[in-house]
Amino acid sequence: MEPRLSLVTLGVGDLARARRFYEAMGWTTDSAREDDVVFFQAGGLILGLWDRVRLAEDSGVDDSGEWGGMTLAHNVRSAADVDRVVEEARSAGATVVREPAETFWGGYSGAFLDPDGHPWEVAFNPFWTLDEDGSVRLPPPK
Amino acid sequence: MEPRLSLVTLGVGDLARARRFYEAMGWTTDSAREDDVVFFQAGGLILGLWDRVRLAEDSGVDDSGEWGGMTLAHNVRSAADVDRVVEEARSAGATVVREPAETFWGGYSGAFLDPDGHPWEVAFNPFWTLDEDGSVRLPPPK
Repeated sequence: MEPRLSLVTLGVGDLARARRFYEAMGWTTDSAREDDVVFFQAGGLILGLWDRVRLAEDSGVDDSGEWGGMTLAHNVRSAADVDRVVEEARSAGATVVREPAETFWGGYSGAFLDPDGHPWEVAFNPFWTLDEDGSVRLPPPK
Repeated sequence: MEPRLSLVTLGVGDLARARRFYEAMGWTTDSAREDDVVFFQAGGLILGLWDRVRLAEDSGVDDSGEWGGMTLAHNVRSAADVDRVVEEARSAGATVVREPAETFWGGYSGAFLDPDGHPWEVAFNPFWTLDEDGSVRLPPPK
């Protein structure tokens, strides 16, 4: 198995609401309004939105309706960018669960939940490289 | 917010066990054995493993210990590759929850749970482009 991700699918309770949220965050999709799944090109991978019940069935899991131990992160180039993106999320209808602040690991971040409760961290990490195309790179080994 | 993901963090109950699983799948990390987090470079993003309790706290969510409505996918270049990767996962200790088979959307895929119950789909999708560097691309709009 090559070390890479192709698709992250978020199970949603209301596809139109979830689509509106990500579109309000500035993401664009070519999926048709009547499609039962919405795909966003997200750099070299794809973020999908799909009915949560069908996704649970497709994934072979039981769904308790709560958080399942997975968090997404969006890294930016400065602390000011963290503040800006968290405000953008709040305006788009997200619940800000951690206001932007310095972190224990030496960066600066905040966190929000999307309309279906999926957590996103918005982070400025001075130890990681953020390429022009948005790719993020770990530092070389010490 | 630019349309991209930087980091996907999986909350784990036993960091050493989770690390062994992903290493057995062929992923490599420069994280030290004593680090309390493990990062894998996964193409242009990073996959992290971290204590589930701390991740829940950091993400501002309650943790029921069940699936939370998010599934990861790894796309490959052929149906035979799906079979191969699913067998590799089984050998590495994963629970195969859906044996490889043709799917309703016209592809071929199987699904497994990693040792912490995080679902992965392994898929051959003839409608998406898989670049040489592993990036996946949606088709142009019709």
